[in-house]
Amino acid sequence: VSDPVYRVDGDLVPASEATVPVDDRGFQYGDAAFETLRAYGGSLFEWPAHRHRLARTCDRLGMPDAVPDDAGDRVRATLAANEFDDAYLKLSVTRGVQPGTVTPAESVDPTVVVYAKPLPRGGVGSDPVWDGPARLRTVDTRRYPDDALPTDGKTHNYLNSVLARLELRGTDADEAVLCDADGAVASCATGNVFHVADGRLHTPAAGPALPGVTRDVVLELAAEAGVEATTGTYAPADLRAADEVFVTNSTWEVRPVASVDGDPAGTGPVTRALADRFDERVERRYAADQL
Amino acid sequence: VSDPVYRVDGDLVPASEATVPVDDRGFQYGDAAFETLRAYGGSLFEWPAHRHRLARTCDRLGMPDAVPDDAGDRVRATLAANEFDDAYLKLSVTRGVQPGTVTPAESVDPTVVVYAKPLPRGGVGSDPVWDGPARLRTVDTRRYPDDALPTDGKTHNYLNSVLARLELRGTDADEAVLCDADGAVASCATGNVFHVADGRLHTPAAGPALPGVTRDVVLELAAEAGVEATTGTYAPADLRAADEVFVTNSTWEVRPVASVDGDPAGTGPVTRALADRFDERVERRYAADQL
Repeated sequence: VSDPVYRVDGDLVPASEATVPVDDRGFQYGDAAFETLRAYGGSLFEWPAHRHRLARTCDRLGMPDAVPDDAGDRVRATLAANEFDDAYLKLSVTRGVQPGTVTPAESVDPTVVVYAKPLPRGGVGSDPVWDGPARLRTVDTRRYPDDALPTDGKTHNYLNSVLARLELRGTDADEAVLCDADGAVASCATGNVFHVADGRLHTPAAGPALPGVTRDVVLELAAEAGVEATTGTYAPADLRAADEVFVTNSTWEVRPVASVDGDPAGTGPVTRALADRFDERVERRYAADQL
Repeated sequence: VSDPVYRVDGDLVPASEATVPVDDRGFQYGDAAFETLRAYGGSLFEWPAHRHRLARTCDRLGMPDAVPDDAGDRVRATLAANEFDDAYLKLSVTRGVQPGTVTPAESVDPTVVVYAKPLPRGGVGSDPVWDGPARLRTVDTRRYPDDALPTDGKTHNYLNSVLARLELRGTDADEAVLCDADGAVASCATGNVFHVADGRLHTPAAGPALPGVTRDVVLELAAEAGVEATTGTYAPADLRAADEVFVTNSTWEVRPVASVDGDPAGTGPVTRALADRFDERVERRYAADQL
C-alpha cells in the first residue's frame, strides 16, 4: 500500500493529500499530543491505555477536552477504510488553528489526524517487524526534564528523539539510549529499555522514562511469569553489564538487544519468555469477536 | 487584511489555504527551525542576523544545507505580494516529508513556509505594537537544557513557551519568565529580559538565554549610548529588585515592564534611551533606498 488512507478530522483522504493548515498550532509549535498503536486482526491493542495517556497528555497541555469522544471509532474507521487487519496507527490531537500567537486560547477546536500503515500479522509464530536485535548506543543528547516538557506522554515536540537518532549516524547502532540530566538511563529514542541482572527484570522508573504502554504490558507479563521486576535508577554501565537487554514499543513489541555501546549484549530466557507471553496475549486479539 | 498571502515552497497562497502534508516532519515532530522578523518600510530588519541564526539552527538539527540560498528573496516576495511595508514575518524551514519514522534521512528536501501579517509603522514617533508595559510572572515551567533541545535557536518544538504562557491563566501577567534547571533566569516565553541595577544594564548570558537578535541590537545600542552592560546569572529576585526592567523581541522591540511577580517594576532613563535609539535605528530603514 503505497498511499494509505488517513483521516483528518471528519475526512478520509489519501495520505499523499492529507494536510493541515500551516497556521495549525500542531505545525507551528508542535502543540499536539499523539499516540502510536497497533491493530492486530482488526482490533486495537491496549486502546484504553493509549486513550488514557493521550487524554492525560492533552490535560498537561491545558486542553483537557481535546480528545474527541469518538477517537477510538475514528481510528477503527481509518483501519476499515484501508481494509487493514494488521497495522501501525498514529493518532494526533493538536490545539488547532487559533488567532494570536503563542498564548493558547481556552476554547480549543482540535485537529485530529489518524495515520495508518500496514504491518505484518503479530501473535504466536509471527515474524517480528524489526530486522534483527537492536544495537543500542548511549548518546550525548539528554532526555528533557518533566518541568520543561511532559515526560509522561508523547507530544509533537519530538526533536529530542530526532537529535538522539542523529547521533547514531556513522555508528553501527540503530537505537539511542538517552540519559536524564543526572546521567541515569531514561529511555530509548522511541521506546523503553529493560535489562535482566541477577535473575531480576529492571527498567528505569517512570518519570525519567516514558510510561510506555508496551512497558506496562511487559511488567504485567513478568508478574504473570513469576519474574521479579524492579523499576529503579540505572547507569549505562548497568545495561552493558546485564545478562539480557531488550527494548519495547508498540510496533517493536519485545525486541532483543545485540549490543550496548559496542559491547555484546545477550538475549536469554527472560526475554524469550516475555516475548512468547506477549505473542500469546496478541494472539487472543485474533480470536476476539469484538473489534 | 484578514487573509494575507503566505508562501509555501514556490507558491504564494492565501493564508487560509496554506497547508503542509501531515507527513511533513515539521508537523509530526516539530522537526523545523524558524525565525520571526520585522519589515520596516518594505525592508527586512537585521536579516543577516536572522539568516545566520536560522542556518545555525538547521545545522544543529543535522540539515546544514536546508536554508535555501534565496530565503531572503522568498521573504521579500511574500512581503511584496501582500503589499505590506510594515509587517511581522515568520520563516520556517522543516526537514520535509521523508520515508520512515523518527531517524532523519541525510537527503533533505525542506518545506519552506513564509508567514506574513501587517503591523503598524515603526521608527521615531511610532506607536508600539504592544498594549502597554509587560506584566511578568516567574513560572514553574523551566527552560529546557541545551543538551536536550537547542537553546541557541528557535525550533517548532515550542511547547516549552506554550506551557509557560499557560501558567499565566488567571493571573494579571502577560509574559512568563522561565528559569533554567538551576533556578537562574533564562528568558521570557517569547523574548529576552533585561534589567537595570546600579546604573548598569544586565541580561542573562546566552546559553540559558536565547541569543535574541533584538537582544544583540540592544546590547550594541547600550554600547553606543555609553551604558555599561553585563551578561550574567540572575535570580528572579534580581528582576524584582531592579530599578528598571524591560523585555525584547522582534515585534515588541524594547518593551517596558510594569511588574514582576506582582511587584511594581520601574521604567526609567536607560529603558527610554535604548528604546529611542532603537526607534532611530529603525527609522534609518525607512530612509534606506535598498530593500
